[in-house]
Amino acid sequence: MTINLKNLLNPNIKSSKMGEFQELGQIDGLSISSVSADLYGDGRDDLTLFYFKDGAKYAAIYTKSKITSCCINWNLRIKKFFIKALLVNTKNANTFTGIQGAEAIKEISKHLAKSLTLKAAQNPEGIKEVIKPTDLLFASTGVIGEKFPTKKVKDRIGYLIDKLKSEQNKFVWFKAASAIMTTDTKPKLAYEECKIGNKNIKISGIAKGSGMIAPNMATMLSFIFTDADIPSAFLKAILKKCVSTTFNSITVDGDTSTNDMVVIFSTGKVKNSKIYNVLDPKLKEFENALHKVMLNLSKQIVADGEGAKKFITVKVVQARSSSIAKRIGFSIANSPLFKTAIAGEDPNWGRIIMAIGKTEENILINRLKIKFGDILVVEKGNQADSYNEKDVKEYMKWGSVVVEVDLGMGSASHTVYTCDFTKEYVDINADYRN
Amino acid sequence: MTINLKNLLNPNIKSSKMGEFQELGQIDGLSISSVSADLYGDGRDDLTLFYFKDGAKYAAIYTKSKITSCCINWNLRIKKFFIKALLVNTKNANTFTGIQGAEAIKEISKHLAKSLTLKAAQNPEGIKEVIKPTDLLFASTGVIGEKFPTKKVKDRIGYLIDKLKSEQNKFVWFKAASAIMTTDTKPKLAYEECKIGNKNIKISGIAKGSGMIAPNMATMLSFIFTDADIPSAFLKAILKKCVSTTFNSITVDGDTSTNDMVVIFSTGKVKNSKIYNVLDPKLKEFENALHKVMLNLSKQIVADGEGAKKFITVKVVQARSSSIAKRIGFSIANSPLFKTAIAGEDPNWGRIIMAIGKTEENILINRLKIKFGDILVVEKGNQADSYNEKDVKEYMKWGSVVVEVDLGMGSASHTVYTCDFTKEYVDINADYRN
Repeated sequence: MTINLKNLLNPNIKSSKMGEFQELGQIDGLSISSVSADLYGDGRDDLTLFYFKDGAKYAAIYTKSKITSCCINWNLRIKKFFIKALLVNTKNANTFTGIQGAEAIKEISKHLAKSLTLKAAQNPEGIKEVIKPTDLLFASTGVIGEKFPTKKVKDRIGYLIDKLKSEQNKFVWFKAASAIMTTDTKPKLAYEECKIGNKNIKISGIAKGSGMIAPNMATMLSFIFTDADIPSAFLKAILKKCVSTTFNSITVDGDTSTNDMVVIFSTGKVKNSKIYNVLDPKLKEFENALHKVMLNLSKQIVADGEGAKKFITVKVVQARSSSIAKRIGFSIANSPLFKTAIAGEDPNWGRIIMAIGKTEENILINRLKIKFGDILVVEKGNQADSYNEKDVKEYMKWGSVVVEVDLGMGSASHTVYTCDFTKEYVDINADYRN
Repeated sequence: MTINLKNLLNPNIKSSKMGEFQELGQIDGLSISSVSADLYGDGRDDLTLFYFKDGAKYAAIYTKSKITSCCINWNLRIKKFFIKALLVNTKNANTFTGIQGAEAIKEISKHLAKSLTLKAAQNPEGIKEVIKPTDLLFASTGVIGEKFPTKKVKDRIGYLIDKLKSEQNKFVWFKAASAIMTTDTKPKLAYEECKIGNKNIKISGIAKGSGMIAPNMATMLSFIFTDADIPSAFLKAILKKCVSTTFNSITVDGDTSTNDMVVIFSTGKVKNSKIYNVLDPKLKEFENALHKVMLNLSKQIVADGEGAKKFITVKVVQARSSSIAKRIGFSIANSPLFKTAIAGEDPNWGRIIMAIGKTEENILINRLKIKFGDILVVEKGNQADSYNEKDVKEYMKWGSVVVEVDLGMGSASHTVYTCDFTKEYVDINADYRN
């Protein structure tokens, strides 16, 4: 399929090859629509609707920030485990918008619920049901503190619903993943298949995020869809487990957003055997597949970090506990001095030492080993005897750099993903609102 | 006095006017010498000796990093409260240099002690005493993990001692403050006078530091000298108190170094009345003066932050506790998104909201007020009604920006100082070792 990505009208998209993106599977029971409410003033897609004609079970994890978007406050108040749609807008975070922002969601939710009820009534096969505002979830991303463009969004609801597609071809996914972007330069898509019992299950996921990325759900949205039938409580348990080593193990700048969320929806269109227990071995394969989707999306986010030129993997191994390993991993991955050194292709391992030290974790210096890729640079409290700066400098030129810190103190480990810190990051962020 | 700063041979020094620096007072009992051991290969001063012919009481605070320089390990092992000299080198941090680094200090300390003993013997007025290696303190700053240049330093000890000056004119202080610099572009000097009882007391301080600056003594060295006579235990108590609102309230990049220290030396040449208690009201004026010196040096460090174009003051007021205020202040001051916005002169207060939220401290959104200078930008959970982006943008053009966050929840406060985050920071740090 040849698609002119120019049609997406998203000036941020640098890639013009759809071929480099994974093809996502059709999730029965889900319809998608992405249109422009002209929130950016350049006609790019900025409004996306995910509609489940027969509803979906779901589970969500939200930012830990104490100041959250009106959309998150709305979602948290919904106590149902079965919803009908999710509306996503970009450009405006609907955060710190006071009563206006909360009223915006109320008004839009009423209008959207009414319009979807009408649509359902027109569908000869559809269940003639009344969709309520509390059947709807919202997600927003963009600038904090600007008045929410209620009218612009509301006015586009009718058109958005008209454009709903229940068949998700490659372009539909690509268009949706592009419509939820802010400063991203590439849409993020991931797909896996697995089995629950003897049934084939699909998991399709998209994500956005490029700055304000840090553990605990930084300006990051991720929506994952499966046709499996899994109760919400179990979805939540699995999602939580997978988040800790995926979305909560990435960092671009250590800043955490007010709007982050990762949501998984289960349409239940594949009639797998009922799951009565989260430890049901039938769920293991699903969990592995979901983890793959989430790790894949996480890595795409970091690789597209604002201004990023290099993908960095920080592995901390042989730690006394995984929380210590995680703390040290993030201390390195968040250090501007480490990240600028990588940008400069400088194997300045002293900055890794600095970042380990500043965690105030107890370290046995003589047991500490540091590797760049396969090259040992530090051991026995000293630069490794075999160290050859030329070799390491050669390695630093790669687009993907792996740093391994071996503490030699235990058997726990944790891996953190990040990117380098370049002048372009400053450019993008000094000028974000202009 | 006209001095050609070119003589200092320090290519980093951008300022050519001595006039903009404070004139430091003569501290009796102290001699200073700064020379070049050619550690940089360009002849700039890199070795400084502070010698107390009749010894000095002292107190020191070191980095909290768990990986520390050999010089700090050495100093920590000295249990005396009365020392004879401090030797400072730049270019090499003597950190993670293994046995070689520790041996370097042993060797240099022996040589320095012997040479100073000889010098004391030659002085007709001096006490003919034997100076021991354990009478000496060391400070290093520079690249981590490079072999310590023992021979180069040792070979310059004789010349360094020859050049000792017991009269500290403006140039001597300026030369010393320049000799301890690494990526700094300006030497940092501060001076205050006060009284203890009816005696006039002088406090002269210098500092260095420009990157890797964060609370808990980031790559920062500060040496403060007074002619007062104050017992070491009380010096320590006052120093500790002053550090929390000065050197531990600044941040450039949130990175903490392995080498930081702030040391105060008391030569006791002014015979003030004996102090028997740290709460002695006679010490209050001294504490205030010392605090001024330290705050002045702290601000100079931030103003000279790597690549910094703007000085930023983050005041958090009306907090429930000062530790909450400090945590929120640092969350803002360390946020790359906030710092790049300031660099871009963009009053993007949403990033302040983000940084407050990510601390996970409880906030009453409706009570929160944010000001840029005197301009109210946020109140009652919303952008202030009086907000006028043009006014704020005008304010953002200033070289010094004050952000006030009023939590409206209590009476505690804390002020943090930082600088903006510019492309030049990335330039300096991507390329530091080349």
